[in-house]
Amino acid sequence: MHENREAVLKRLRRLEGQVRGIARMVEEDRYCVDVLTQVAAVRAALKGVEKLVIDDHASRCIEDAIASGDREDQRTKFIELLELLDKARG
Amino acid sequence: MHENREAVLKRLRRLEGQVRGIARMVEEDRYCVDVLTQVAAVRAALKGVEKLVIDDHASRCIEDAIASGDREDQRTKFIELLELLDKARG
Amino acid sequence: MHENREAVLKRLRRLEGQVRGIARMVEEDRYCVDVLTQVAAVRAALKGVEKLVIDDHASRCIEDAIASGDREDQRTKFIELLELLDKARG
Amino acid sequence: MHENREAVLKRLRRLEGQVRGIARMVEEDRYCVDVLTQVAAVRAALKGVEKLVIDDHASRCIEDAIASGDREDQRTKFIELLELLDKARG
Repeated sequence: MHENREAVLKRLRRLEGQVRGIARMVEEDRYCVDVLTQVAAVRAALKGVEKLVIDDHASRCIEDAIASGDREDQRTKFIELLELLDKARG
Repeated sequence: MHENREAVLKRLRRLEGQVRGIARMVEEDRYCVDVLTQVAAVRAALKGVEKLVIDDHASRCIEDAIASGDREDQRTKFIELLELLDKARG
Repeated sequence: MHENREAVLKRLRRLEGQVRGIARMVEEDRYCVDVLTQVAAVRAALKGVEKLVIDDHASRCIEDAIASGDREDQRTKFIELLELLDKARG
Repeated sequence: MHENREAVLKRLRRLEGQVRGIARMVEEDRYCVDVLTQVAAVRAALKGVEKLVIDDHASRCIEDAIASGDREDQRTKFIELLELLDKARG
């Protein structure tokens, strides 16, 4: 990671705190639906982290593969993206 | 489209019939939850169509871009995949 | 279906046309990524149909189950919603 | 939470460790795609937690609402489920 490194680390630390907060809610027997709302917030936060990592990947690794002219590297990068797409489509 | 052309067309025709079937269910005042089950089936069928189109795209257009050595074409193909990924992540 | 019946039928007819349009694109060998964009549009349209059906279900069937005081009917309605939720979570 | 309380807490603690592990990967400049794979694993783990919380909610809060015969409570429970469904549909 390059450009978004610090932003990603900051978000991950916040995320860790959010997960700990959910555990506390469960320990305090808070209402299930409130717990689910917090889980959804963590899911959304994870999506934001993914976005930052993907952007970084695109602007660095993928650009490198294009610039290098190395066909094997390009193929690897395409296949990785296709696999990510396949997983994201659920 | 190349390899999966006929398979995609066949599935799309079936899909059209499924959508028409849902309309008939609504006209016949069938139970909402049964309608929703059919809508979910159409959604799953669409996913299958997408998969076939993506595979075709990968094996032809992307391979062409790699083989050509044309950096602009490669960049376009990467950006398109990144945009598809972004949409698929929801 | 009650309130949203006509709206749902109208959307389903439009959807049928969209699916037919995608088949035409494939027959005309249109670019894969443009096909995928149209498939995504159909997916979004389906989501809109689902929303209308769910709203109708909520305002009629679920309200009926509450009003009836019939525990078995209420349980059925809850279980159906939980199953829809489970599927929607992917 | 009742039945699944301990299972949920155990999973949340593991999840916290997974998030910390991702932060470590980013600090060690690990490959973006490997980071994304771990993020996807956390997403899947969250889904598992959600499932346990929903099951608990269904077997306790929803059953209570049915048993009570309290229409307002039943309506609240239905609306909450409908809202969760709406969010889950993306």
